[in-house]
Amino acid sequence: MDFSHSPKVVALQARVMDFVQTHVLPAEGEFAREMAAFRAAGDPWRHTQVMEALKARAKAAGLWNMFLPQSEAGAGLTNLDYAPICEIMGRYPLTAEAMNCSAPDTGNMEVLERFGTPEQKARWLEPLLEGRIRSGFAMTEPGVASSDARQIECRIERDGDHYVINGRKWWTSGAPDPHCEILILMGKTDPDAAPYTQQSMILVPKDTPGVKVERTLSVFGYDHAPHGHAEVSFTDVRVPASHLLLGEGRGFEIAQARLGPGRIHHCMRLVGMAERALELMCRRALVRKPFGRPLSDQGVTRERIANARILIDQARFLVLNAADCMDKVGNKQAKKEIAMIKVAAPAMACQVVDWAMQAHGGAGVCQDTPLAEMYTRARTIRFADGPDEVHRNQIGKLELAQYLSPAH
Amino acid sequence: MDFSHSPKVVALQARVMDFVQTHVLPAEGEFAREMAAFRAAGDPWRHTQVMEALKARAKAAGLWNMFLPQSEAGAGLTNLDYAPICEIMGRYPLTAEAMNCSAPDTGNMEVLERFGTPEQKARWLEPLLEGRIRSGFAMTEPGVASSDARQIECRIERDGDHYVINGRKWWTSGAPDPHCEILILMGKTDPDAAPYTQQSMILVPKDTPGVKVERTLSVFGYDHAPHGHAEVSFTDVRVPASHLLLGEGRGFEIAQARLGPGRIHHCMRLVGMAERALELMCRRALVRKPFGRPLSDQGVTRERIANARILIDQARFLVLNAADCMDKVGNKQAKKEIAMIKVAAPAMACQVVDWAMQAHGGAGVCQDTPLAEMYTRARTIRFADGPDEVHRNQIGKLELAQYLSPAH
Amino acid sequence: MDFSHSPKVVALQARVMDFVQTHVLPAEGEFAREMAAFRAAGDPWRHTQVMEALKARAKAAGLWNMFLPQSEAGAGLTNLDYAPICEIMGRYPLTAEAMNCSAPDTGNMEVLERFGTPEQKARWLEPLLEGRIRSGFAMTEPGVASSDARQIECRIERDGDHYVINGRKWWTSGAPDPHCEILILMGKTDPDAAPYTQQSMILVPKDTPGVKVERTLSVFGYDHAPHGHAEVSFTDVRVPASHLLLGEGRGFEIAQARLGPGRIHHCMRLVGMAERALELMCRRALVRKPFGRPLSDQGVTRERIANARILIDQARFLVLNAADCMDKVGNKQAKKEIAMIKVAAPAMACQVVDWAMQAHGGAGVCQDTPLAEMYTRARTIRFADGPDEVHRNQIGKLELAQYLSPAH
Amino acid sequence: MDFSHSPKVVALQARVMDFVQTHVLPAEGEFAREMAAFRAAGDPWRHTQVMEALKARAKAAGLWNMFLPQSEAGAGLTNLDYAPICEIMGRYPLTAEAMNCSAPDTGNMEVLERFGTPEQKARWLEPLLEGRIRSGFAMTEPGVASSDARQIECRIERDGDHYVINGRKWWTSGAPDPHCEILILMGKTDPDAAPYTQQSMILVPKDTPGVKVERTLSVFGYDHAPHGHAEVSFTDVRVPASHLLLGEGRGFEIAQARLGPGRIHHCMRLVGMAERALELMCRRALVRKPFGRPLSDQGVTRERIANARILIDQARFLVLNAADCMDKVGNKQAKKEIAMIKVAAPAMACQVVDWAMQAHGGAGVCQDTPLAEMYTRARTIRFADGPDEVHRNQIGKLELAQYLSPAH
Repeated sequence: MDFSHSPKVVALQARVMDFVQTHVLPAEGEFAREMAAFRAAGDPWRHTQVMEALKARAKAAGLWNMFLPQSEAGAGLTNLDYAPICEIMGRYPLTAEAMNCSAPDTGNMEVLERFGTPEQKARWLEPLLEGRIRSGFAMTEPGVASSDARQIECRIERDGDHYVINGRKWWTSGAPDPHCEILILMGKTDPDAAPYTQQSMILVPKDTPGVKVERTLSVFGYDHAPHGHAEVSFTDVRVPASHLLLGEGRGFEIAQARLGPGRIHHCMRLVGMAERALELMCRRALVRKPFGRPLSDQGVTRERIANARILIDQARFLVLNAADCMDKVGNKQAKKEIAMIKVAAPAMACQVVDWAMQAHGGAGVCQDTPLAEMYTRARTIRFADGPDEVHRNQIGKLELAQYLSPAH
Repeated sequence: MDFSHSPKVVALQARVMDFVQTHVLPAEGEFAREMAAFRAAGDPWRHTQVMEALKARAKAAGLWNMFLPQSEAGAGLTNLDYAPICEIMGRYPLTAEAMNCSAPDTGNMEVLERFGTPEQKARWLEPLLEGRIRSGFAMTEPGVASSDARQIECRIERDGDHYVINGRKWWTSGAPDPHCEILILMGKTDPDAAPYTQQSMILVPKDTPGVKVERTLSVFGYDHAPHGHAEVSFTDVRVPASHLLLGEGRGFEIAQARLGPGRIHHCMRLVGMAERALELMCRRALVRKPFGRPLSDQGVTRERIANARILIDQARFLVLNAADCMDKVGNKQAKKEIAMIKVAAPAMACQVVDWAMQAHGGAGVCQDTPLAEMYTRARTIRFADGPDEVHRNQIGKLELAQYLSPAH
Repeated sequence: MDFSHSPKVVALQARVMDFVQTHVLPAEGEFAREMAAFRAAGDPWRHTQVMEALKARAKAAGLWNMFLPQSEAGAGLTNLDYAPICEIMGRYPLTAEAMNCSAPDTGNMEVLERFGTPEQKARWLEPLLEGRIRSGFAMTEPGVASSDARQIECRIERDGDHYVINGRKWWTSGAPDPHCEILILMGKTDPDAAPYTQQSMILVPKDTPGVKVERTLSVFGYDHAPHGHAEVSFTDVRVPASHLLLGEGRGFEIAQARLGPGRIHHCMRLVGMAERALELMCRRALVRKPFGRPLSDQGVTRERIANARILIDQARFLVLNAADCMDKVGNKQAKKEIAMIKVAAPAMACQVVDWAMQAHGGAGVCQDTPLAEMYTRARTIRFADGPDEVHRNQIGKLELAQYLSPAH
Repeated sequence: MDFSHSPKVVALQARVMDFVQTHVLPAEGEFAREMAAFRAAGDPWRHTQVMEALKARAKAAGLWNMFLPQSEAGAGLTNLDYAPICEIMGRYPLTAEAMNCSAPDTGNMEVLERFGTPEQKARWLEPLLEGRIRSGFAMTEPGVASSDARQIECRIERDGDHYVINGRKWWTSGAPDPHCEILILMGKTDPDAAPYTQQSMILVPKDTPGVKVERTLSVFGYDHAPHGHAEVSFTDVRVPASHLLLGEGRGFEIAQARLGPGRIHHCMRLVGMAERALELMCRRALVRKPFGRPLSDQGVTRERIANARILIDQARFLVLNAADCMDKVGNKQAKKEIAMIKVAAPAMACQVVDWAMQAHGGAGVCQDTPLAEMYTRARTIRFADGPDEVHRNQIGKLELAQYLSPAH
């Protein structure tokens, strides 16, 4: 047991931090200004020049596609190696897109890399890896319990050399993005099959007739532009049969494979986000002096800072352990460890950010700090990709199962 | 000790609920549509026709200005009587403005009623009581700890028959509202006086030269239009000396008198808001069926509903007791009771709304339910009008003080 | 709605507090010494002289049997009237027995008063009301889930003019007490009847052959002598058929009637216990000065004191409301309100006492303060008379039920 | 970063577990019976035969003194290596004493090993390492805030070739043990020196005239015999000057060195204790069936089991990281990491044990399970060796200090 990162990872961490200090942090203000101008002009669904410039720089610096383990397309990092890098991306949010490591593209690229045909890879994985296009993941539906794959109502029906898709999805993150060109959609090819082989996944180019972004969804009051979240309808959408991924009835299997990495990336970023919130809280506490004494001298503030430090470090170790597990025994065998961090990390981040907001008063909830938006992101992950309750139920079952075997 | 409301209050409660059912609830959709259209057109700081219509109806029905105790201008309700009425307003937010009972006007009207000269009342209280204009309260400043009145930097300087105001305020709620015509501003007339007699309050018509709404502040991404919150600068703003309230050096005294009612009204509304969140949670739990069983059959859901019911009822009793105290011993003597609800009610509401959000998944954080916005309102009150920490410190001191007296 | 007690109750409260100050508090040390001597001599199951003296004084002062509402045998207090009196008993624990108001006798007397025949009353209720004997309640069984009455295994079988009892009970509080002469036992007369009419209750004199106190049960490390808790076996215990209460198959009905008052009395006492813990915490905080500053000057301490005050007051109002409900609509209709306090009050008391312990360091967990024992009593009530989980489930169901009716 | 233990440690872990299964678990019942007999006979301060036999076996098996890192007297384990071994001792409490690894002897042996003279080692360390005698640590005093070393009142005064000790200590754990022959006492040799050089530590044989065990202290009703906790008075106690440890004025320094290992050992054991509580909870949940369905099928139970698993694993990683830190940078530099686990581990254990108690109902608080006693041990560590509040304050200060340096 050794808790330090490898020299290679430490060196990469330093390079990424250097990039953040030199390029990302100075760009944050410009990004906000460009987006504000877009919003004022009535269309926030546009790409900023500053992000395009950041992407070019990061790509040139070789800080690119670091998320993909065990693949030549990636940077040769294990999940465990990637953790401290991804944490930085959570701490400085522009970094993820700048380095082509942002959701849902990472998960979608991983799906294409693991399960795509050479043709599918050439057509969609290549431009995604190059950062030329972006993508969406259309799984959740408005009318049913998203955590239960058996309730999916979207249909994918074979018709000669094509599949015809009818259904309605929401929380398709990235769909409003003008760079988004491809959606990975989950639907049912055979509603009469066994519960977990009814579903398939298929590639749907966003410009296919019948695909309609019905509206964008706000998160608390944020639009999350230019990325965003959308409700998307699919009406008699025809795509070639070759767009199917892996085979009919294997949608649930792909979903399971996709969700593990997606979940742990969220958690890695949440650790970084919480670190930034704690930093902001400490800095604020040192300068704010109600009643003549800095907040940092007050026991209540120190207690919260201490508890925040404990919560963050605990969550980080749990995340690292889950990453280590995924590397050693595979995503499927690591399901308990992944479920544990999926419960622990967002709750931790909500708590730490909440304390930081409270230390900031009004500045903590308005546009003057990133805290309020951080909170909403952390809060959302308490149900996105499976709500806490479903994960806890699964962890509880797995824990109990140990005592059902004859050996015990 | 009797926990039931008087027949008069029960009857009024029924009338208000009837108005809500008949007029307010049906208007909610139209209000959202009008505001959405304003936003799409680039200016959300406009008044909706539907609200104007609601106000006319409520006024005609005599459901108007119910907040003002011990005054002919009010409806003859004590604080305790007002509690269940105000709770309904928290449950159905359009109701408060429709009945001319919304913040910060209520607090401002109470200040004018208690401390205004006949001229001040005629000029500003009358149109406020009639709902023809709205008002703002300019106390909090961006650079200093708002909870400590001694840190206020805004200056109010006598110059002949006028006062000249220079300073910067933020979180001046209502200032962006086009109906807002008058601000009550707190500043220092004598920075060298004793700590709590340095401040004065003065009436500043919003159209006075030198008053500038610099920007609006978002609350977790929401603009809270058409009411909103603003940062307002005051540069060499000249108002007649007769605009001063009560006298130089009495600003802190007025603030204390104003904050008690303001705080308890927030808490009454939060109880109502939590009731609505719990109702939404129950209704959702009954129809949502992940994994084949309604959420309402699951122990985890029932535990939360039970805890929500307990938290709400406990907070309500505490609020009623504080109101009763204010009626019996006055706002000043009731400071501990008011501080207690100011801590308890927002924390309760945050928790209950959070559970309700979780039961709704994605619908809980987007525009499809009122839950996310509710959460941000409750969260904001954890520091607005004094942060939890300041109130808890005061309660602790008052509790400890009992054991310092010789009798103990 | 009025939150003050009636003049009659205020006067009684004053008399009880006067008795506590004059007689109970000075007796606490002597009680501890007598019990310590008994323990050192190897038998703690003996009665102290000091308690006998207190009982005589309280009886003489007319401070006796105040718990029994709507009965000539009681003191004419409603449940709501009794609350502040019972709270004092929780604050100064010797008071309850001194005034003949201690569990499980109160519940047992209430059962006899409501459901007993004249003969049963003459034989057992009279001496209990006079404080000459004590009693036990034998319901819970070691092998089954106590919260589910259907699982009771103890048998009560008719045999001519007698009933024959076989079974094993535990947590029969009071059974080890040498003054305990009568047990009210719940068992099954007809295991084949409908689920809630299988059970009956019967009076079992403790000296009946076949009744054996197998062992006493500790609570954490306390024996709770001389009252205590016992595991009791019943082997071919024969009692006259006239000892049955109310009729065969009515045991569950009696249990329901008995548990309401029992639960609310626990909660009333817990409020008083928490008040004492808070008082001890405040007094300690004022004199303890780690690092040169009294604990009472530290923000962390004040936060806890403030939160304790809020928690206690909230729980008290909820308890008063439940008592008021019982008075107005009856114990059965008040089941939701009773369940709510049964959840809220012990959790509150555990938290407040825990904070008080922490403020005392080592003194908080050893025999030098009453805090550790207080904690264990509050903790135990989180499952005694029905665990939190069962109550919360019931509250949740009742809350949800509102939205199932057609009117909603 | 690698989260697995070394092969050497894994092998040792297996040997210890094998010893536990073969010898310790079967001895638990006999130990309880021997102690019960001692208590019934009026003197629990006696050693059991079963423990003596276990010690002989463990010593013969080479499972002995595993706690001492970087010393020939130990087993060659680092702090990190020792963690999983110590965790087993927390899970099966008889194991620690059986393997001569129990507090306060471990800390005392470490003090003698690091700071003792050859004579002191020969006289006291040898028999302690052999398990022939036990020891006590006399630091805490009843009248002052134990967390503040400056408040110590006990005097150690030079008188020729001797020191004369006068003072009163409490919570001297182990002092009532008949095998306890030596106390390490902290007192002031020079009250006028700088705050942290006033104190010295000295060896006091328990049979020195003037040493008196005044009374034993209960912990939530438990006596913790035969080890126990005592209040000890020292009246004109004369010991040779050679009994002083390290030198006058170095008591605080020794205390700091001693407390780090002591604290982390507590935390390692608490992780093991929590594991056992979770195991008991799972086993109970699988067999207990209130209302016809096992507790283990209920969502509320599974949520708690899941949360317990998360809490335990998080605390374990934090403890391992602190151990790793101590090994790499030394106990002093690891002070923040040690403070963090001292806060996190007892809180975690209290919560997990509390859930386990609740799942057990009455069995959870009485002598039928180890849960209630576990709870009291975990609860006590929330203030023993420094209360949570002091540790959190220190962590907060250290965290804030990062932002005070010019580099930030």
